[in-house]
Amino acid sequence: MKAVLITIGDEILSGNTIDTNSNFIASQLKEIGIPVVQIFTVADTLDSIRKTLETAHQLGDIIITTGGLGPTKDDKTKTAFAEFFNDKLVLDDPTFEHLRKIFIKRNREHLLEINRNQAVVLSKATIFQNENGSAPCQMIQENGKITICLPGVPYEVKPLIKDKIIPFLKHQLSLHYIESQIISVVNFPESLLALKIEDWELALPKNISLSYLPIGNRVKLRLTATGNHLDELKSQLKIEAEKLKPLIGEKVISWNGNEIQEILKEILIQKKLTLSSAESCTGGELARLITSVSGSSKYFLGGIIPYDYHQKISILGVSEKTISEKTVVSAEVAQEMSLGGQKLFKTDISIATTGVSGPNSDEFNNEIGTVFYSIRVKNFEKTNRLFLPHLERNDFANFVSQRVLQDLIEMIIQEEH
Amino acid sequence: MKAVLITIGDEILSGNTIDTNSNFIASQLKEIGIPVVQIFTVADTLDSIRKTLETAHQLGDIIITTGGLGPTKDDKTKTAFAEFFNDKLVLDDPTFEHLRKIFIKRNREHLLEINRNQAVVLSKATIFQNENGSAPCQMIQENGKITICLPGVPYEVKPLIKDKIIPFLKHQLSLHYIESQIISVVNFPESLLALKIEDWELALPKNISLSYLPIGNRVKLRLTATGNHLDELKSQLKIEAEKLKPLIGEKVISWNGNEIQEILKEILIQKKLTLSSAESCTGGELARLITSVSGSSKYFLGGIIPYDYHQKISILGVSEKTISEKTVVSAEVAQEMSLGGQKLFKTDISIATTGVSGPNSDEFNNEIGTVFYSIRVKNFEKTNRLFLPHLERNDFANFVSQRVLQDLIEMIIQEEH
Repeated sequence: MKAVLITIGDEILSGNTIDTNSNFIASQLKEIGIPVVQIFTVADTLDSIRKTLETAHQLGDIIITTGGLGPTKDDKTKTAFAEFFNDKLVLDDPTFEHLRKIFIKRNREHLLEINRNQAVVLSKATIFQNENGSAPCQMIQENGKITICLPGVPYEVKPLIKDKIIPFLKHQLSLHYIESQIISVVNFPESLLALKIEDWELALPKNISLSYLPIGNRVKLRLTATGNHLDELKSQLKIEAEKLKPLIGEKVISWNGNEIQEILKEILIQKKLTLSSAESCTGGELARLITSVSGSSKYFLGGIIPYDYHQKISILGVSEKTISEKTVVSAEVAQEMSLGGQKLFKTDISIATTGVSGPNSDEFNNEIGTVFYSIRVKNFEKTNRLFLPHLERNDFANFVSQRVLQDLIEMIIQEEH
Repeated sequence: MKAVLITIGDEILSGNTIDTNSNFIASQLKEIGIPVVQIFTVADTLDSIRKTLETAHQLGDIIITTGGLGPTKDDKTKTAFAEFFNDKLVLDDPTFEHLRKIFIKRNREHLLEINRNQAVVLSKATIFQNENGSAPCQMIQENGKITICLPGVPYEVKPLIKDKIIPFLKHQLSLHYIESQIISVVNFPESLLALKIEDWELALPKNISLSYLPIGNRVKLRLTATGNHLDELKSQLKIEAEKLKPLIGEKVISWNGNEIQEILKEILIQKKLTLSSAESCTGGELARLITSVSGSSKYFLGGIIPYDYHQKISILGVSEKTISEKTVVSAEVAQEMSLGGQKLFKTDISIATTGVSGPNSDEFNNEIGTVFYSIRVKNFEKTNRLFLPHLERNDFANFVSQRVLQDLIEMIIQEEH
């Protein structure tokens, strides 16, 4: 059982919008053991949609399209589907009724007529109503293939996939199991790591595949096992992970966690430690990353972004003398920021960043890409410097934030020994 | 001249990583007038890469691949290229020398031998050295087509595209011009807007295309003009935008800006206003969005994330009585937070958010998806409530932050009248 995704929309091809739907759909399908074998991103034209539907039906058993269902002139998906399936478009009464309810709820009943077209669907289609928008999800089953047509707005797509499509597919298909485990290795370059575990990799059972996902100076090793018995897969993965311990154990910060902020959550909750942030050059990204995890309020008490340097002095108590002697972008200021943050929020751990993210240099003429960060775990403090002149502003903030959290995790783990 | 992008990598297909490279490359190509007509995301296998190269060469004149160039076993791109172009792979001395320099700079000379394979390239290829990683960029020109093979790491891809590929393409091809303008309309549903400007849209010159990009309750109208004379395109767009003024002028918050944070920058600098944020449920996203714009330190003085409610009291001076009577997620707490933020950071404008982003309810049993936000512009204050139960945690933070900035812009613009 293989899936193919088709993203329809000029806004993706023009580089205006990042396609996040494919990522979400692929990860959801993966969880029920359906691999996505290809993703197409195509223009909102009849011809390209129809042709891609043809190719996709050769490659996969489940075809999912997103986008091109809006009420405006540039949306062609439904017509292309009608042509491809040799079907006609008809007004669907239950969908129109559903639309009416949504519009009443939003006090937009006057818009109903204009949106009537949204209730026009393929006559062969099974309809899944969209609770968060006006275009329904349509599904056609023909010749052993399932074709699903979704709107393009991510917050409409997510609940449709999660609450309607995935349960439907699970019910409809007899699926085999897929189980994966992500092992996070730090301070071990990918090429050297590959060499170190080469023999282990070559000896992996045939139903287990390995992939390397480098991110910053962390490498995620993803082991994916497929088979008919879930318990068997779990114990297989456990055995293989066990074999890695003598080889790379000391460089592993997590044996089964995906995002660094999720690994952090595990450790902080387990050790009952509280955390705060004081960030300048990361501009909120560090706190955003930490709070992107549900339940983070259990350990993250707060953050401050003293963007202007006067705020560093007045709120965090950084000394004016340190700033004038060392400039704002210095190890000393980072240290005083983390100290001030620890006091302000009364937390066990405090992390602080200061740097120049560019593209313009700062008022002290510090070199673009320079960052100092300070990590304080109770009475221990550690300062590091990074130099990242090649990173764009947003990548810079994200890279630094990931690194700070990773270093924090390493620092906590090392303290154990 | 059309471009086709090919993203190679199982980490994208598995939903582990979001493909941001395609977005960046497409937007850069668009600026020099080369439209991307299709994007393929394919597995890291010889067969799928080779087949996709074939299809891509039928669809476009410029084919750009990213990914699959790492030193580990799961990377097959180069071999697929060699088969497709009937070429052989050879060790390239200048590339090896470049690699050596990079490894010395990083104190990783001992890794050079393992990475020797990275200096093995197609014998026909022109090489663009990669300053930020070990896999070079390769280019082959054959039968009037240009095929470019890039690594997959985004911060390696960006400078290669921006500093090497785009200048090369500009020089190599005689390109026509493309000019676009984005008009941001608020509080005007897409379908109603489409109806309102229908006649105008139908009368647009043939070389100008229009697309609708809805985001929250803002709709971005993108006008794209192509032609041989840049000045002509600019004046054409100016004329068409002028015609829109009587139709939708009062609902437009920006006549030429893309992201809400960029529009905000324009307005705040023009009006010499300073800004601070006090955010709870958005967890740093609001500050991140604001500071994602270069030059934001000119008006954004700082932000606070009093995540735990005790911090709202101790740092922002929110009254304990208000919290116990109204709970943390209330209009009153939002108002006191924005007041506290305005005082703490001494800014003209202060914005504050408080809400429950889920998936778990808060300690006061407030309904998941409830948000209150307060905007203070000098002595004026405005509080709004949103209810977004359907949004996932990260989308929720982003949606709320976008909306707050948009409302702030509207509030500043309205004050003028």
